[in-house]
Amino acid sequence: MNEPSADDVRIEEGPVPTGCGRRPPAPFVPGPLGPDQLQDIDAYWRAANYLSVGQIYLMDNPLLRQPLDVAHLKPRLLGHWGTTPGLNFIYAHLNRVIRARDLDMIGVWGPGHGAPGLVANAYLEGTYSEVYPDVARDTDGLCRLMRQFSFPGGIPSHASPELPGSIHEGGELGYALAHAFGAALDNPGLIVACTVGDGEAETGPLAAAWHSAKFLDPATDGAVLPILHLNGYKIANPTILDRMPETELRSLLAGYGYEPAFVGGSDPAHMHQAMAAALDGALDDIAKIQASARGGETERPRWPMIVLRSPKGWTGPKTVDGKPVEDTWRSHQVPVAAVRENPEHRAILERWLRSYRPEELFDGQGRLIGRLAALAPEGERRLSANPQANGGRHPQPLRLPDLRRYAVTVPGHGAAAAEATRVLGTFLRDVIALNAEARNFRLMGPDETTSNRLDAVFAVTDRVWQEAILPSDDHLARQGRVMEVLSEHLCEGWLEGYVLTGRHGVFACYEAFIHIVDSMVNQHAKWLKGVRALSWRRPVPSLNILLSSHVWRQDHNGFSHQDPGFIDFVANKRGDIQRIYLPPDANTLLCIMDHCLRTHDRINVVVAGKQPAPQWLGLDEAARHCAAGAGIWDWASNEGEAEPDVVMACAGDVPTLETLAAVDWLRRHVPDLRVRVVNVVDLMTLASRAMHPHGLDDPTFDGLFTRHRPVVFAYHGYPWLIHRLTYKRANHENLHVHGFIDEGTTTTPFDMCVLNRLDRFHLALAALQATPRLGGRGDHAQLILREVLDTHREYVRRTGDDLPEVKAWVWSGGQAPDPRGTGADIGPRGPSEPVRPGETVDGWTIVS
Amino acid sequence: MNEPSADDVRIEEGPVPTGCGRRPPAPFVPGPLGPDQLQDIDAYWRAANYLSVGQIYLMDNPLLRQPLDVAHLKPRLLGHWGTTPGLNFIYAHLNRVIRARDLDMIGVWGPGHGAPGLVANAYLEGTYSEVYPDVARDTDGLCRLMRQFSFPGGIPSHASPELPGSIHEGGELGYALAHAFGAALDNPGLIVACTVGDGEAETGPLAAAWHSAKFLDPATDGAVLPILHLNGYKIANPTILDRMPETELRSLLAGYGYEPAFVGGSDPAHMHQAMAAALDGALDDIAKIQASARGGETERPRWPMIVLRSPKGWTGPKTVDGKPVEDTWRSHQVPVAAVRENPEHRAILERWLRSYRPEELFDGQGRLIGRLAALAPEGERRLSANPQANGGRHPQPLRLPDLRRYAVTVPGHGAAAAEATRVLGTFLRDVIALNAEARNFRLMGPDETTSNRLDAVFAVTDRVWQEAILPSDDHLARQGRVMEVLSEHLCEGWLEGYVLTGRHGVFACYEAFIHIVDSMVNQHAKWLKGVRALSWRRPVPSLNILLSSHVWRQDHNGFSHQDPGFIDFVANKRGDIQRIYLPPDANTLLCIMDHCLRTHDRINVVVAGKQPAPQWLGLDEAARHCAAGAGIWDWASNEGEAEPDVVMACAGDVPTLETLAAVDWLRRHVPDLRVRVVNVVDLMTLASRAMHPHGLDDPTFDGLFTRHRPVVFAYHGYPWLIHRLTYKRANHENLHVHGFIDEGTTTTPFDMCVLNRLDRFHLALAALQATPRLGGRGDHAQLILREVLDTHREYVRRTGDDLPEVKAWVWSGGQAPDPRGTGADIGPRGPSEPVRPGETVDGWTIVS
Repeated sequence: MNEPSADDVRIEEGPVPTGCGRRPPAPFVPGPLGPDQLQDIDAYWRAANYLSVGQIYLMDNPLLRQPLDVAHLKPRLLGHWGTTPGLNFIYAHLNRVIRARDLDMIGVWGPGHGAPGLVANAYLEGTYSEVYPDVARDTDGLCRLMRQFSFPGGIPSHASPELPGSIHEGGELGYALAHAFGAALDNPGLIVACTVGDGEAETGPLAAAWHSAKFLDPATDGAVLPILHLNGYKIANPTILDRMPETELRSLLAGYGYEPAFVGGSDPAHMHQAMAAALDGALDDIAKIQASARGGETERPRWPMIVLRSPKGWTGPKTVDGKPVEDTWRSHQVPVAAVRENPEHRAILERWLRSYRPEELFDGQGRLIGRLAALAPEGERRLSANPQANGGRHPQPLRLPDLRRYAVTVPGHGAAAAEATRVLGTFLRDVIALNAEARNFRLMGPDETTSNRLDAVFAVTDRVWQEAILPSDDHLARQGRVMEVLSEHLCEGWLEGYVLTGRHGVFACYEAFIHIVDSMVNQHAKWLKGVRALSWRRPVPSLNILLSSHVWRQDHNGFSHQDPGFIDFVANKRGDIQRIYLPPDANTLLCIMDHCLRTHDRINVVVAGKQPAPQWLGLDEAARHCAAGAGIWDWASNEGEAEPDVVMACAGDVPTLETLAAVDWLRRHVPDLRVRVVNVVDLMTLASRAMHPHGLDDPTFDGLFTRHRPVVFAYHGYPWLIHRLTYKRANHENLHVHGFIDEGTTTTPFDMCVLNRLDRFHLALAALQATPRLGGRGDHAQLILREVLDTHREYVRRTGDDLPEVKAWVWSGGQAPDPRGTGADIGPRGPSEPVRPGETVDGWTIVS
Repeated sequence: MNEPSADDVRIEEGPVPTGCGRRPPAPFVPGPLGPDQLQDIDAYWRAANYLSVGQIYLMDNPLLRQPLDVAHLKPRLLGHWGTTPGLNFIYAHLNRVIRARDLDMIGVWGPGHGAPGLVANAYLEGTYSEVYPDVARDTDGLCRLMRQFSFPGGIPSHASPELPGSIHEGGELGYALAHAFGAALDNPGLIVACTVGDGEAETGPLAAAWHSAKFLDPATDGAVLPILHLNGYKIANPTILDRMPETELRSLLAGYGYEPAFVGGSDPAHMHQAMAAALDGALDDIAKIQASARGGETERPRWPMIVLRSPKGWTGPKTVDGKPVEDTWRSHQVPVAAVRENPEHRAILERWLRSYRPEELFDGQGRLIGRLAALAPEGERRLSANPQANGGRHPQPLRLPDLRRYAVTVPGHGAAAAEATRVLGTFLRDVIALNAEARNFRLMGPDETTSNRLDAVFAVTDRVWQEAILPSDDHLARQGRVMEVLSEHLCEGWLEGYVLTGRHGVFACYEAFIHIVDSMVNQHAKWLKGVRALSWRRPVPSLNILLSSHVWRQDHNGFSHQDPGFIDFVANKRGDIQRIYLPPDANTLLCIMDHCLRTHDRINVVVAGKQPAPQWLGLDEAARHCAAGAGIWDWASNEGEAEPDVVMACAGDVPTLETLAAVDWLRRHVPDLRVRVVNVVDLMTLASRAMHPHGLDDPTFDGLFTRHRPVVFAYHGYPWLIHRLTYKRANHENLHVHGFIDEGTTTTPFDMCVLNRLDRFHLALAALQATPRLGGRGDHAQLILREVLDTHREYVRRTGDDLPEVKAWVWSGGQAPDPRGTGADIGPRGPSEPVRPGETVDGWTIVS
């Protein structure tokens, strides 16, 4: 084997790439790398580049031991070369500093389509073969490595869960920095090297995420080192951040709060030295910042970052068919494409591959030569093997308090009132307190923790904030378990990064605005789905999304709070990933959230109101009901021995309230109507078992909803979802769903229900209309209901408030109006039947 | 009437607000306002503030002619005071410069919850009473104005379509700047004053939108004047942009490319002078920039902007219950709340209201005094009456070329191949050319115009770009109809602003990433819904969203292209707003897009592939098919006289291809199976007529799908949508939908179909399984199909490509394989039967 010569660091002689328009590089400065180091790091880079090109093109002849032939080439050329050499360059340099400083570091790679490079590096480090023994460190393994890339039955062309060391789904751009900061939180020893592509940097979520440093405590959190990779072009266009004047870019990044170091050029020797120096400088700065903060300094630091300006498709073909390729948008995907048809193209490819001199990099068995292999960090220090990126270094389950402490005492069904999220807040307060030492729980929200009435948490923690704090500020501090920023994207992204590194959390959001993160939740679901097939991936805590200030309570926001369709969106995800809960009151909310916080690898969506509302179930009843997911509320039904005339079903807190009020009315006014009340707390129980593991089997479903009786179903969201979940059920034809429809605007909660025909009077009407056997009595009752609706409309438009009898209604079990009025029993709670935390009740664990 | 004295400009004496932490204001500079002007503008501001507070609190006694009593107060206090006085302040100052400079200006108000102020100003200008004569300019009208705000049957608490002069739905934050820039495009005489709240400024979409100036041509577009309003607090937290060091904020805004002028403080006199001076300076700068650009300068300017730092809840109660309110987060919504129960609170409110001295502002009839009314601009110069904000100043329909020019010649069904979006590109090219002079069409996309094969447009236009342009760049220019930025948020927001001011456009997006703008589309749908009820709102061109690179063609992106659920999202919107089209080939795509570009006030979603594919319909057939929305393809069916054994239905280009291939296979292998082919191009024809105006009536639906025969339905998206659209149809029980399910990863298109059971073989299997009458012949055919599927799986995993017979398949009408192969006839097209542009064909106009 030839030792590399000093020339090796220049891959290919030629003119400075045309068309790149780059400012001339800074004058060469002798860098921190000695001559051997320089040669070695360049050779390592060449090896990664070689394997990257091989993955895009080859399905055989992996080391070019034979002349390149059509038979060696994949029939379909897929993958993105343009960003890849830059990622390989960064990776090689991160390896150096990890070794030199024994760093606990992970990488977040924004340009996810650079997967050929990331896979190549995981392979060079040996992790890939450890995880996928088929892809061994020999010639056959090399062949498999190349062949599997973007090949049927193989791996996707972007960074995906299959990539060891990744916590970042590389499909959709925009979330790298938020993920990186989420991973760094409460990880004081961790450095997250986050590469941000200049394409991604144009997205909104990424643009906002630079401010994340204002929420990162250098004393107790880890560090994020952003590496803004300017390779100048997207698919067909230059990028904004590359093309804007460098003075403006410096100003922008300084404005975001960073001290950027610029590394730019195309000459490898120069670039290696400059990158090494920049990394050393940045890591020195991080160490200083952390030492200072951990010594008591509380002023927000200006964090270092690196701006790496390198040619797109660096070291790739300079020209193809006479057109410039390297350093232009033409190198974005497959820079030379007609390699099967066009011998000239094939020759370009072969020259390109051989320019990396694979014969110097891999030995006769196809193994990376020892001198280069020794450059990678070892064991868990490898970027591809750091346990932080696989479930966390020391993942711990949350310590959860006994739910009894928070349960609302319900002396009789409906005979208490509470604000469900306020009760949940007391539970979350103690979750935070119990796990204060473990520092593994965060509550994210866009400035709405108090608005969503979770503010009990501020008894034990604060909102984290690194800018100035004034005396009049409310629970702001340098450290805190609550993170509030007016960006749903950041809340979601931080929490994803946090749970993907093994910690726990809840994102509490107004229901109306959760659609902002649809596509992020999409990406997370895709990640979780990918993980299902990978036995080596350790579970991560579930992503818990609490939706409050929901669509039925637009009181303070008029028609801005609309669209309960996030549920529909999540319901389209695979059944083994998503859970949707609609707890009807505080105790069911407690049980559901307690459960969600114990789960892994899921997206749990919980919808719960924050307004005072009647409480239906004691804690034990609530636990049993949640365990079953759906059930008959005998205490509200009067079906007797025969099948009921009508089933009144409900899912959601307001629908439950209105259904019970309708039932109460019916039982008082039409006492011989036999009504069954079914409440659904776990929405996916409605689906078939084939579609969702929580789906009830048909006999159980029919036992609840009957096979032939009319069902009036009051549902929190768009009614069609109930139809689509139940379309295969026997009784589907008799289902009358009342849900949310995009109509009009109103500002009293009950009027909102009337508008959507989800109010008690319309529900009672629907029940009567569905049971013609009542004859005249039913007709008379319908007349009364229509009159009440007219009265309501007149009253609410005159006074601006709901009818007093609506506001004052309490459940009477079909008896005379209860004189107690509403607001009873929000106060202290007495003991209730004990439920041990974690106890398995009635199949709860079976259905989950 | 008393003339205001010099003291008037100080609303209330008192200490500098505590807790605000603001830097001391710059030393007082004598400003551009003379003493009278200063007094008048302050009085105007007081009038707006008074009406704002009145809207939040009062339902009677609008001018406080009587002492304030509980009966005058609304029972439910809703609305957001905090941001409102700042908006009123800006509004008053914009009025001054509009008059002084005769400006064509509209406002975009990011802090949409400041609607009390915006409504107050529209009322003060008289527009409100012109539009809503009930809300007259007298005491009774004042009472109605206050009462209706956030009151049942009234108006929402945020800026909504009901607000004259607005083009910006004020519910969800983040899109103000993008809307403003969209409105300014191709409006060279227009200035859009865009107020950005410091809460909104934390969102990702807003953070990205600052870069919009890099796409705005000062020579041919109008100007956007951003006014960043720092009032310091969100609901419960300080804001990032207010609390960060001012040096960093200046650096950030300079980095975004602006020259900010800072106006800060709380003393009204000082603030009036400073704001007037800043506005004069900014408008002078805009005039200079435009003159220079229109004189030939091509360097991107640094646009002016204003940073207005004023106390939150400015002029409101300083303290309530001993706690500071003004200039803290406590003034966010209703700063003094218990006004009905607590006489002290009520007294605070009364003092607050009277501090504006309404008796000096309104005359005995409740009319704004003449001297103040004269401060507002007149007629169409009023911000609330500028026609730019109501359908555009001179809206013109698009000139559309004759579709025949672009039609693919289809000598026989399936006997041609084309790339649908490439054909569409030629049509869009000529749309651009025909409307070049009108400058009223834009094509938006995140760097994907070429990737989506619409690049024919570059024959007549360029991508607009104001940064440096290099020789190697591809169709970048200072002016251009194509706008590309790697931010779906910006593409969507620009287009919304553009169509809301009366112009036309298409947003072409990868299907996988359109979920990024779910919530923006939500807001636009909400806007269009609101508009429906307002006869004074003029129609605006539809928002056209073209989804390509769709979920069935993941070739170049592996599993990153996933989730066809945007269709589900849009299908939840109201039927009179949304349209969803799945044209199966190029000619249907032409017809659909031609149609969409003629429509108004809708969201049109069109899904179309970009890969070479068989072409089914000639242009005339395509026009008729699109007009019907769904129809039987007789030429593909062999049902004969009797009802068919099975209906093979399809919606989407790949589903159509696979269905026809399945039918072809069945007709060749099981010739006595009677098959009907139904193609659905307008998805909402499946819905009931009650749900969507395009819904087919039941007899027509049954005529297509039969009442009792099995239907195998191949659908582009998640299969459940088809079930939910059809659950009330007679034949729903017999519907077998094959669609997209989140499963696995693969890289050949056909393998993708197999994975989802949407391929020809699975569809043929399903047809056979649904028709047991075939007996042994059917069983035998099923055996063959299962073998083919095994063969396919083995082949694709070995070679990385689809089976040759799959790739080479062409429609044979159930006859022997056609020797022509695939790629036929992409080339020049011959004449076909003429269709006049705009012609009404077979009820097309009826269904749309």
